[in-house]
Amino acid sequence: MHRYRSHTCGELRSAHVGETIRLSGWVHRVRDHGGVLFIDLRDHYGLTQVVADPDSPAFALAETVRAEWVIRIDGLVRTRPAGTENAELPTGEVEVYAREIEVLGPAADLPLPVFGDQEYPEETRLKYRFLDLRREKLHRNIMTRGAIIDAMRAKMKAGGFFEFQTPILTASSPEGARDFLVPSRIHPGMFYALPQAPQQYKQLLMMSGFDRYFQIAPCFRDEDPRADRLPGEFYQLDLEMSFVEQEDIFAAMEPVITGVFEDFAAGKPVTKNWPRIPYAESLRKYGTDKPDLRNPIVMQDVSEHFRGSGFKVFSRILETPGNQVWAVPAPTGGSRAFCDRMNSWAQSEGQPGLGYVMWRDGGEGAGPIANNIGPERTEAIRQQLGLGAGDAAFFVAGDPAKFVKFAGLARTRAGEELKLVDHDRFELAWIVDFPFYEWNEDEKKVDFSHNPFSMPQGGMDALTGQDPLTIKAFQYDIACNGFEIASGGIRNHRPEAMVKAFELAGYDEQTVIDRFGGMYRAFQYGAPPHGGMAAGVDRIVMLLTGAQNLREISLFPMNQRAEDLLMGAPAAPTPKQLRELHLRLNPPQK
Amino acid sequence: MHRYRSHTCGELRSAHVGETIRLSGWVHRVRDHGGVLFIDLRDHYGLTQVVADPDSPAFALAETVRAEWVIRIDGLVRTRPAGTENAELPTGEVEVYAREIEVLGPAADLPLPVFGDQEYPEETRLKYRFLDLRREKLHRNIMTRGAIIDAMRAKMKAGGFFEFQTPILTASSPEGARDFLVPSRIHPGMFYALPQAPQQYKQLLMMSGFDRYFQIAPCFRDEDPRADRLPGEFYQLDLEMSFVEQEDIFAAMEPVITGVFEDFAAGKPVTKNWPRIPYAESLRKYGTDKPDLRNPIVMQDVSEHFRGSGFKVFSRILETPGNQVWAVPAPTGGSRAFCDRMNSWAQSEGQPGLGYVMWRDGGEGAGPIANNIGPERTEAIRQQLGLGAGDAAFFVAGDPAKFVKFAGLARTRAGEELKLVDHDRFELAWIVDFPFYEWNEDEKKVDFSHNPFSMPQGGMDALTGQDPLTIKAFQYDIACNGFEIASGGIRNHRPEAMVKAFELAGYDEQTVIDRFGGMYRAFQYGAPPHGGMAAGVDRIVMLLTGAQNLREISLFPMNQRAEDLLMGAPAAPTPKQLRELHLRLNPPQK
Repeated sequence: MHRYRSHTCGELRSAHVGETIRLSGWVHRVRDHGGVLFIDLRDHYGLTQVVADPDSPAFALAETVRAEWVIRIDGLVRTRPAGTENAELPTGEVEVYAREIEVLGPAADLPLPVFGDQEYPEETRLKYRFLDLRREKLHRNIMTRGAIIDAMRAKMKAGGFFEFQTPILTASSPEGARDFLVPSRIHPGMFYALPQAPQQYKQLLMMSGFDRYFQIAPCFRDEDPRADRLPGEFYQLDLEMSFVEQEDIFAAMEPVITGVFEDFAAGKPVTKNWPRIPYAESLRKYGTDKPDLRNPIVMQDVSEHFRGSGFKVFSRILETPGNQVWAVPAPTGGSRAFCDRMNSWAQSEGQPGLGYVMWRDGGEGAGPIANNIGPERTEAIRQQLGLGAGDAAFFVAGDPAKFVKFAGLARTRAGEELKLVDHDRFELAWIVDFPFYEWNEDEKKVDFSHNPFSMPQGGMDALTGQDPLTIKAFQYDIACNGFEIASGGIRNHRPEAMVKAFELAGYDEQTVIDRFGGMYRAFQYGAPPHGGMAAGVDRIVMLLTGAQNLREISLFPMNQRAEDLLMGAPAAPTPKQLRELHLRLNPPQK
Repeated sequence: MHRYRSHTCGELRSAHVGETIRLSGWVHRVRDHGGVLFIDLRDHYGLTQVVADPDSPAFALAETVRAEWVIRIDGLVRTRPAGTENAELPTGEVEVYAREIEVLGPAADLPLPVFGDQEYPEETRLKYRFLDLRREKLHRNIMTRGAIIDAMRAKMKAGGFFEFQTPILTASSPEGARDFLVPSRIHPGMFYALPQAPQQYKQLLMMSGFDRYFQIAPCFRDEDPRADRLPGEFYQLDLEMSFVEQEDIFAAMEPVITGVFEDFAAGKPVTKNWPRIPYAESLRKYGTDKPDLRNPIVMQDVSEHFRGSGFKVFSRILETPGNQVWAVPAPTGGSRAFCDRMNSWAQSEGQPGLGYVMWRDGGEGAGPIANNIGPERTEAIRQQLGLGAGDAAFFVAGDPAKFVKFAGLARTRAGEELKLVDHDRFELAWIVDFPFYEWNEDEKKVDFSHNPFSMPQGGMDALTGQDPLTIKAFQYDIACNGFEIASGGIRNHRPEAMVKAFELAGYDEQTVIDRFGGMYRAFQYGAPPHGGMAAGVDRIVMLLTGAQNLREISLFPMNQRAEDLLMGAPAAPTPKQLRELHLRLNPPQK
């Protein structure tokens, strides 16, 4: 018989009754039922009930074992007594009568129990992550995470993509976030950087004649901790294709992402034939470029109904060119209590309040705004919004660029409060036509709004003949349930257009060469049209597992202070290490 | 029709004749045959011959295109004229008559041609890696590398292993080599380290209750450049299993590695049922712990034949206890010219020379040693070594620990020179029973000879009752054709045995806690027996592709000075970066 096990703890069934078997695993729980000991033995594969009574030669030792000891048990598989079967456990028809027990690895008193669902402080969980990871839910999440990555990989390969590993020790490249730097020992005073994303390398792969690249790519950004971002490293499903237009990327990736979601959605519906929503339309309808399309509320411009109306606050606002009034329709929201709640929430968000109209049972509008604008305009608004008795609408007014974010939050709030959002589905959409540039108010200059390597729509003609702030890019996101889960673009593969695009953002050619020398050089020697995208693995896993915190789907995460409490990182270097790296510490002045 | 291509450049066959198609790719080569232009158009998938004659509307533009321009061609597929087919090209039956050409990406004069096999200086190749990677052989090697990794992954998964990603930003852990350090911005004066291997994390995974881990794992070592090691990062097929003994690791991995080799060996034989060679036996027979078993030469101890013999050099050496004389049999090596060549080689290696006996046609031994020891002893040696007329044997004498490496080199040299080595096969073997400790002559102390986390054979009893230098470890390597391609061990999962093992090497318990705190802690809370190994992806790819240099199988390697010439790394940090990292440069004194 094998030294440690003849079966796993998830394997025994009625068919094994009468067999002498051997199991190894962790003591999940010990129960003493009137002198008979029940040990739930757990391994990665499952749980098996082990029984020892005073007649068993293993009884004396069985009395000593405690939770999380690792033990080996030899015993006889037998049917559980009638009425004690556990239908929820795959091994629940049988139990093992222990004949011999060997302690393979005892455990000290646990700082964190494995059995049970009790919450524990994060610091304890991270310091004793090896115990935390034994707990059922986290263990399962980690396995699901791996299975999702496997599914991504399989679908990418089936789609003709090929996996490459790009370097992790590379050059600093200003892509928006802060780099992690790695001092060079051989070159005093010089540093490598960890890649924020393999953006340049994947484009270089296309220029190297490879056709369809993908990678489950580790990415590194030294950013200040945020609730929705782990410090340090994260993973992207990164891809790039040559000789493609935007449609080709969509055709390649929509089935991959839909397929991954369907595989892990546990029966929840997943969008097929994703809508394509231009960036500007998404802001107008949903107040965000990552709309939650499970929320049926669509905002509308209702400025015309307020222009010159008796509601002076709005009509005065509308006198400024460009200002608008948007409505957030709230079906079933037509109660004073709800409208007041929304108003209070708006104030808690720093707004002066949130104007509204309610439509009463008879269909007439009510509330201060309705009173001010009169029944005709109120009815026109109702008709435009397609609302009826028992519904409400909220209004935001001013410069849309300034109120759009708040309007989007109001839409989300109303949808969630009124339970209009069906949480049991995954709504996916392409967001397209992102602006290529944006106005940097601080520096009073034009800036890239997203990825400087994207191809501007209209190409060189647009760059030379158009107001930069009106240029759209071949740049796109995937939005799911209110999150951006992927982002990409068709790249600018023409060096002269790349130089021009940077020039408009205030960077001369020498700066481009200094910052992106390898890519600039590659563009000179036969660059194919290419494009791609990157999907956030962690966010997708969170959506599919329902986890609310990145630490629930990550193996050995750092805490919010960017510390690895298990391994004790970061730590002080030795003087020898500092000397070898030609560095001196320069602690902040107190 | 698609904007860029209806087919790839590797796709057209006779069945397409008569179709109007569209291709995009790189101009591999342009030939002018009496006014008719032949353009070999290349993409990732293949090469297609495009023809333009003065009647074609595309002719004028076709005359301007140069090597490595990226172009799109619309044209008609037609059968090549009889006698001009190219059987070596999958598309060699057809050609495309060009009707329209569009330049998608022109190319400047090339610093490095893509067509042809001419050697180029490494600096040029690395700086223009995107051109180098378009060259046929390197392009193919990179694809083979990826396919080998895919095969490893598929076989591991089929064997019940599950892939996990372990952290890349972690703690410094002294595992023999030097760490790359990453300064923390948030914690002034503290540093993360990049993992030399996920050794601790994979053991922690086992203690977290996962059962069979693997990873295609990036590893980082800041070592001085060496011919057989790229600076910076490399990849391992890393794995770990719980509830196993050494035999289980062998049973899991032998089919995986054999399978990968068979998949990519192009018909060359691969060892089945690998021999298991104890470390001490491997040194004795082959002079190394990574023997090339394609070489049939097996060394033997022939001390007895020289003890008290007339060859005073050896008989005097043998008077010192522990000294031995080993023979390197050299079948077919029985010529003065060969023996002299071996002798000269030995001198070039810093040896005084290499004694030998040749056996002449009649079977009698010849040479100075034979003359000194006489025919009887010479014949006894011949019989022990199983040699005959026309063969030779070389002899090394002294302390085996000191001469063993040279003896191994002599064995290799003789085997290669005499063409006894069959290069067209892969000989795999397990090397087992490595010593747990070795004597550190510099520090006059006992040191771990390999991995301090391995389980000593005999466990705690051996650690407390045995001369440390006689303790063997459950530690093993895979050797292939003279290279170590993998290494592993059964781990020491008992904390008291771990503490004892370190104590024998001179480290007290506090040092263990300081250095390996996370793992030490984990051992206290129910650690399962576990073990694993790690295989070097780069070395396996080199063996299977026949590449002689790591840069021939790596995508974007650094040069021997640890510089990425393409991206320009390492580079000087900005003052802001240094300030944020709380560092000052400390350049070496001139």
